[in-house]
Amino acid sequence: MADPFMQQAIELALQNVRAGEGGPFSALVVRGDTVIAEGSNRVTTSYDPTAHAEIIAIRKACDELGVYHLDGCDLYTTCEPCPMCMGAIYWAHLDRVFYASTREDAAAAGFDDAYIYEELRKPPRARSMPMIQSMRDEGYQVFEAWMESDTKVPY
Amino acid sequence: MADPFMQQAIELALQNVRAGEGGPFSALVVRGDTVIAEGSNRVTTSYDPTAHAEIIAIRKACDELGVYHLDGCDLYTTCEPCPMCMGAIYWAHLDRVFYASTREDAAAAGFDDAYIYEELRKPPRARSMPMIQSMRDEGYQVFEAWMESDTKVPY
Repeated sequence: MADPFMQQAIELALQNVRAGEGGPFSALVVRGDTVIAEGSNRVTTSYDPTAHAEIIAIRKACDELGVYHLDGCDLYTTCEPCPMCMGAIYWAHLDRVFYASTREDAAAAGFDDAYIYEELRKPPRARSMPMIQSMRDEGYQVFEAWMESDTKVPY
Repeated sequence: MADPFMQQAIELALQNVRAGEGGPFSALVVRGDTVIAEGSNRVTTSYDPTAHAEIIAIRKACDELGVYHLDGCDLYTTCEPCPMCMGAIYWAHLDRVFYASTREDAAAAGFDDAYIYEELRKPPRARSMPMIQSMRDEGYQVFEAWMESDTKVPY
């Protein structure tokens, strides 16, 4: 069944590809029947590997509303979000995620989403990305300072 | 053993907590013996749930160098990166990640990193975040347009 918001996101993504402005992905943050913000992939044109459609839409929506949590809002995205964007979705406290293509569809088109999901299932030392731990005790002092802080704003 | 870059990141994070500018996290992008960019958590002060230290440092480093891939650079971060930041690290093609605290340390201080890792291990339909798929065929047309495009810039 056609969903008007998903249709809008897909049209944005097609425009993005045709205009050569970035990868084949767009997303909308929606509250009720209102589009709060839209985003289309801009990784290569803005020199920003985090400029995925979902990240852009979330940042714009928060800026628009003056909030850092989007409770009460949904995300519509043309493809199952990658782990970076899923992390952002949890941190943003969105209500729901609607998506069209899957990580397998993205992989077939040359994108690393499925690979990164596989990597993140592994413990840090088993990943292809070398991860080296040091100074854990000193690092924990930052959390101690946070827990003792009277001025902290938890999120 | 003390690592000067990690020590610098930890000092930045302590300053961030003391100044009330955001959460207890800082990160550096380093190439050779040069710090290319630094970032400290600004989620609550910039109204941006994606403003984690690593994301900020990666965005700044790419902006500084005019690139969207950071091959040849390492990331130093005061805490094991959350899934959002690990995704960004893979997309950014960083060489290595050095970290001090763990996701369990972060959880003990009230942060959701470990929880989000658990969620991302599950298939989309089994997560606490409702994920609803629709219009997969229409969504796939965006990838088809991408694969047929003569002007696309893969990344």
